[in-house]
Amino acid sequence: MSASAVSPAATPARREVGVIDVPRGLSGVVVTETRIGDVRGREGFYHYRQYSAIDLAEQRTFEDVWALMLDGALPADAAQRAAFTAETAPLRALPAELRALLAPVAAATASDGPLAGLRTLLPVAGALRGLRPLYDTDPAGRRADARYLSALAPTLIAALYRVGQGLEPLDPRADLGFAANYLYMISGRVPGPEHTRAIEQYLISTVDHGFNASTFTARVIASTGADLAACVTGALGALSGPLHGGAPSRALDTLDAIGSPDQAEEWVRDRVVRGERIMGFGHPVYRTEDPRSRMLRAVAERLGGGWSALAVQVERHVLEALAELKPGRELFTNVEYYAGVVMDQCGVPREMFTPTFGAARIVGWCANILEQAEDSKIIRPAARYAGPPAPQPVPSLGA
Amino acid sequence: MSASAVSPAATPARREVGVIDVPRGLSGVVVTETRIGDVRGREGFYHYRQYSAIDLAEQRTFEDVWALMLDGALPADAAQRAAFTAETAPLRALPAELRALLAPVAAATASDGPLAGLRTLLPVAGALRGLRPLYDTDPAGRRADARYLSALAPTLIAALYRVGQGLEPLDPRADLGFAANYLYMISGRVPGPEHTRAIEQYLISTVDHGFNASTFTARVIASTGADLAACVTGALGALSGPLHGGAPSRALDTLDAIGSPDQAEEWVRDRVVRGERIMGFGHPVYRTEDPRSRMLRAVAERLGGGWSALAVQVERHVLEALAELKPGRELFTNVEYYAGVVMDQCGVPREMFTPTFGAARIVGWCANILEQAEDSKIIRPAARYAGPPAPQPVPSLGA
Repeated sequence: MSASAVSPAATPARREVGVIDVPRGLSGVVVTETRIGDVRGREGFYHYRQYSAIDLAEQRTFEDVWALMLDGALPADAAQRAAFTAETAPLRALPAELRALLAPVAAATASDGPLAGLRTLLPVAGALRGLRPLYDTDPAGRRADARYLSALAPTLIAALYRVGQGLEPLDPRADLGFAANYLYMISGRVPGPEHTRAIEQYLISTVDHGFNASTFTARVIASTGADLAACVTGALGALSGPLHGGAPSRALDTLDAIGSPDQAEEWVRDRVVRGERIMGFGHPVYRTEDPRSRMLRAVAERLGGGWSALAVQVERHVLEALAELKPGRELFTNVEYYAGVVMDQCGVPREMFTPTFGAARIVGWCANILEQAEDSKIIRPAARYAGPPAPQPVPSLGA
Repeated sequence: MSASAVSPAATPARREVGVIDVPRGLSGVVVTETRIGDVRGREGFYHYRQYSAIDLAEQRTFEDVWALMLDGALPADAAQRAAFTAETAPLRALPAELRALLAPVAAATASDGPLAGLRTLLPVAGALRGLRPLYDTDPAGRRADARYLSALAPTLIAALYRVGQGLEPLDPRADLGFAANYLYMISGRVPGPEHTRAIEQYLISTVDHGFNASTFTARVIASTGADLAACVTGALGALSGPLHGGAPSRALDTLDAIGSPDQAEEWVRDRVVRGERIMGFGHPVYRTEDPRSRMLRAVAERLGGGWSALAVQVERHVLEALAELKPGRELFTNVEYYAGVVMDQCGVPREMFTPTFGAARIVGWCANILEQAEDSKIIRPAARYAGPPAPQPVPSLGA
């Protein structure tokens, strides 16, 4: 069905819509203008609003960046930062109705993990909170809904994980920042400042990254005026796709397979010679080193331990082997590679790698949804029918 | 994250993606070729595969059309029809794990109705059924997943409705066809042939309708390789948007407000003079009468009773008043108008109007998702950054 309430005074123009051919997958097709940010693949640069995302990850808190994405401005001083944190921390609490659903949902979606559970519970969270369609909600209301879903999602993910492990879910702690509370809700231990800051830098670097398929899904749903939970749930569905969601755990699986530094060179050369895939290398947008990878390598080396030494060594071997064996073929590590190393160093279990990505990305999706809601035009493309000519007579049913 | 597993031998081409400007909302932009069907707005015609959708609704069963959408061919004889029905009827049964979730989900989503509950439970149904990503599933497996979700969704919708009303959910009856079983699961009464056939015609006419926002959402998610439940859940989210989902109950609310035939003319002229909206009139694609509306008017008149006489009268008054008061302003009833009348005549309660639409449309979404899965290209458009130039230095936090 379509919007059917048409005033005679506002009848749509009666011209037949033109047909415009574009590259497959809408590659390079500008769907809209945005003030959220951009990715400049050739330069190896991406930004949130007018600031380098990496600079933000080096200099600001997750809450600061969240405020930037939602409101368009960084907290200017400690009082503004404290106000945003005080506003969002209480929203982390799990409503009793959702708590009651954790065990059956975690059990039923066990094969797909906490993000599948989150997709299940977000529409419920939205309904319980009384979320209304975007077009029936004023900007302040939309902002409140966005804060709510972004604050609640990490609690749901961590609780689903713990219940899936046979552990009690933990109440969020309003005395901890977003990043520290997130690690706490997973492990039950308040993390030290090094791990808190490391995961916070990862989370900040993951908030947004151009018009990828999940962000675009969120905006298509938003263009219908649906509520924020419907938009985010759709985006989570797109993120679950293997062509989109990636899997930071795969790169760690590679390091597992190599096992020790003295095996690294042979293992890598063997793969490169045979032209086999090496997880964690290559990106469809960046033509240079992924700026997230560069930052996360430094974070991993700062923390030390875990897989960090091996990861750096394997990366060097890959680049060297490529230079020698496939000259002209440049490949760089992407965000997955060091993201897995850093999350592992911070005590995040592998099945929580992609959910952790999702917990941060929801902030970016919400910013995109709120921006889309300012536009009143539904996103409704066309397709070219390429089947047999229609209409043909419907054959009657044979005996 | 993006697909990160890149073989050195398959590095993507290093050209910078061009930037292509297109109309807002992708209007008229051909995203893909399709063999599912098309809408020819100027002619007032739409088709499924190579057959007029209206001809199919006049001559075939819902299961026949479902088979056509899924497999590309109508059952050729009674044996093929029986085989498809025998294959799909057992899939209607509700797994115990989902039954256990009905009450809490219906309670938590009561404000949004059964479609919100369906969005909640579909990811669970998918996980319980072991749905895998589209790109990890062969065509036969995808077809089986599509049959399953389309067969189960009406059961879930009807059960959520009944539980929300304080009634026991009803087990589906494999001895009834799709349409009769659907009415049975709502009311607990086996419908007569007139009501069965009427609702079946409505359901058939609703299966698909071009690249609307929900169908496009399903295909964007499918392009990531996500599983079928994720794609359908996203589409349901888009359908919940007021710019898309419409509301067949609104047109009935109009008839409620008018109340009796002798009030109709004055009420209508008053609205037309003031340029106010009249629900159920106008469509963004059709420049003629909506072919669904024409068919459903005949169905309503055939059934008689209920709102049918008043609806026909109001329609005539609207067209007459427009011709007299706003010459040149043509407006026709859309699918909502008589859909509500027919569903009401068949005993479908108003809060089940949009869920009933969804129960049929899932068949079309699934056909689109399966077609999209044949394409390996992710749908990932671009946006133009229009904010302040980046990067600007990140301001340090003030005192």
